[in-house]
Amino acid sequence: MKRKKGILFVCSGPSGVGKSAIMEGILKSDGNLVFSVSATTRKPREVEMDGVHYTFVSDEQFEKMIEEEKFLEWVRVHDNYYGTPRDLVEQTLEEGRDMILDIDVQGGIKVMDSRPESTFVFIAPPDMDVNVLRQRLNGRNTEAQEQIENRLKVAEEELKNAFQYDYIVFNDSLSEAADHLKAVITAERCRAIRYFAAQEDNQEA
Amino acid sequence: MKRKKGILFVCSGPSGVGKSAIMEGILKSDGNLVFSVSATTRKPREVEMDGVHYTFVSDEQFEKMIEEEKFLEWVRVHDNYYGTPRDLVEQTLEEGRDMILDIDVQGGIKVMDSRPESTFVFIAPPDMDVNVLRQRLNGRNTEAQEQIENRLKVAEEELKNAFQYDYIVFNDSLSEAADHLKAVITAERCRAIRYFAAQEDNQEA
Repeated sequence: MKRKKGILFVCSGPSGVGKSAIMEGILKSDGNLVFSVSATTRKPREVEMDGVHYTFVSDEQFEKMIEEEKFLEWVRVHDNYYGTPRDLVEQTLEEGRDMILDIDVQGGIKVMDSRPESTFVFIAPPDMDVNVLRQRLNGRNTEAQEQIENRLKVAEEELKNAFQYDYIVFNDSLSEAADHLKAVITAERCRAIRYFAAQEDNQEA
Repeated sequence: MKRKKGILFVCSGPSGVGKSAIMEGILKSDGNLVFSVSATTRKPREVEMDGVHYTFVSDEQFEKMIEEEKFLEWVRVHDNYYGTPRDLVEQTLEEGRDMILDIDVQGGIKVMDSRPESTFVFIAPPDMDVNVLRQRLNGRNTEAQEQIENRLKVAEEELKNAFQYDYIVFNDSLSEAADHLKAVITAERCRAIRYFAAQEDNQEA
């Protein structure tokens, strides 16, 4: 018995928590999971590739897409736009494949309103400790101290939002966190309600 | 951040579906998961050990336990009693350890009423195909044809109940089914609501 529609997994977590690394390994080993490439107006970091990590666009392009309602959700953070292009999400789910979104908490909460049937996963620093996060951001060495302080303030707010998510995956270690996120994905695919929906569809067909 | 209370996992599925084999492997590798040994009045099968697979008791003993409300749930199937002793469940969960129950659908539905916060997993035959189940039961060679037919009738009814469960794990292959059940257990441990409850308790303490 096959599920018919794909599942939308929405992952959020404070900057520097290690979301990308956790998701990368899972995406490599899971042929039915597709990464949603967000559009953004911020400058690419050195390791980031256009169309892979983000689609990098100008402010004008982004604002045009907003007007044309091309985004499932979009937010403005740190003077930059971030958005999830709607078309690819719809298409992937219709094909019965699952999609994973790496978006910030503001964006996640918007998707809770528009697509509450999605699965919401918060990636949290070990023990939700802002000090550990500070160390990681300092270690990254790509940002000025003031920027780091701003990010920490945002992170503290974000942590308060963690409990609105379905799951919290603590990034105590990369491999354990990846195992936990993988388990969430596998378990959600086993949810009775998803087969039930598929069965009803089959009967109608 | 630690969870405070254990989770109760209730596993059901038609006879012959392979529940025991799936659970055995998981129990060996998961130190925080405890198997709930049911009490029963039926005769032990050759491989079954008293106190390990079941606690084998007489009708009189079982009925006394019913009277004393010693069961979380109990049912009568095929002229035999089966029941989940309440004390061990309460104690294990209070200690913060998780417990897994292998009980039939009638029993599972009773626990849905009395402990809806539990996680309910239905182990289903591949494609929910009653014919495959028939082959397995025939292969077992321990039962008369009439008994097999009775079991199949019960199994068909049970399958209809699968959609009342939270998850359906299809036993296409033993290792895959075990992986899926394991994923359900891991994912449920990551549920935000469990940490939320723990946090509230911590604040009260």
